[in-house]
Amino acid sequence: MAIAEITVVPSGVGPSVSSYVARAHRVIKKHSKIKCQLTPMSTILEGELDDLLAVIREIHNSTFDDQVKRVLTLVKIDERRDKELTMQGKLDSVESKLSI
Amino acid sequence: MAIAEITVVPSGVGPSVSSYVARAHRVIKKHSKIKCQLTPMSTILEGELDDLLAVIREIHNSTFDDQVKRVLTLVKIDERRDKELTMQGKLDSVESKLSI
Amino acid sequence: MAIAEITVVPSGVGPSVSSYVARAHRVIKKHSKIKCQLTPMSTILEGELDDLLAVIREIHNSTFDDQVKRVLTLVKIDERRDKELTMQGKLDSVESKLSI
Amino acid sequence: MAIAEITVVPSGVGPSVSSYVARAHRVIKKHSKIKCQLTPMSTILEGELDDLLAVIREIHNSTFDDQVKRVLTLVKIDERRDKELTMQGKLDSVESKLSI
Repeated sequence: MAIAEITVVPSGVGPSVSSYVARAHRVIKKHSKIKCQLTPMSTILEGELDDLLAVIREIHNSTFDDQVKRVLTLVKIDERRDKELTMQGKLDSVESKLSI
Repeated sequence: MAIAEITVVPSGVGPSVSSYVARAHRVIKKHSKIKCQLTPMSTILEGELDDLLAVIREIHNSTFDDQVKRVLTLVKIDERRDKELTMQGKLDSVESKLSI
Repeated sequence: MAIAEITVVPSGVGPSVSSYVARAHRVIKKHSKIKCQLTPMSTILEGELDDLLAVIREIHNSTFDDQVKRVLTLVKIDERRDKELTMQGKLDSVESKLSI
Repeated sequence: MAIAEITVVPSGVGPSVSSYVARAHRVIKKHSKIKCQLTPMSTILEGELDDLLAVIREIHNSTFDDQVKRVLTLVKIDERRDKELTMQGKLDSVESKLSI
């Protein structure tokens, strides 16, 4: 299991790009094995790394359209092999340290 | 107003780094004008850009200690000058497009 | 054709990580269709997007070893469909604007 | 001494953005204490961290104009306190490992 963060930046449109973020979410929703969380700066995905890379590929591709001829896609992959890594587990771990 | 995303990566420690994320949050909490949201991959800050850059500088600096002699800090700054940009406004904008 | 930038950050080792960057370059060298340029902050790859994603997957995987149980991999993908995008073309374009 | 990588992404323009990268270079050239290297995906800066943050602030600001009302700025800061960190030193270190 891995966690990946993705931000897609369509070129030639904007300043508003929320319709492209919504489009990315519709792509993710077709993949039932992937958990996802929307943040104000990115979308965070949890699942098997190969599944995550496939969905990132699909999101990048779906951002192109008649107006968008260039896409910048930012990805951060966090994978840990000594113990299970989950989005909730990462938040819990920080919060337990803050509450001491 | 701007939104900035920060991820600090201390070198030489790990795999667990949540204590460093908690340390960053203690730095942010001293800055009452900055709103902050913890995500599984980063911390997102909202405020005046100069205030955000000052706190990012302070977080980067606070990550060094006896064990950590090298720090990689990742920052994404999103600033919009045609309308107000807030963390909640960005989420609302995507969610309104998803509910259509 | 697309251009991708990759930075791998092994956890638990450091401050020096150049041996991991060298390991990534040995992975890339096995892929004769991919052009690559080393920079002080990343490795930049040029080729078909599917080939780039496959090599990024392989670099990420190769960074794990007996000491490294967690890897953070940062990727930036730049793809343009209205004209050919190359590393040299991008540099030339900026330099032509600077020499005016 | 620290090394920082910056990528500015103007919104609402494109697909070509090389004139904005050139503008960033003109900003950097006014700062004689900062070394800089253009890559196909970013600009890399070397100098004192406070100087780097000031120039990053100025580049971000200079990207706004009549057409650009939103700017996304990506920054990666690498600072090491156990030994001197330079752009050339990082490249040399990887290359020495590759030539073995």
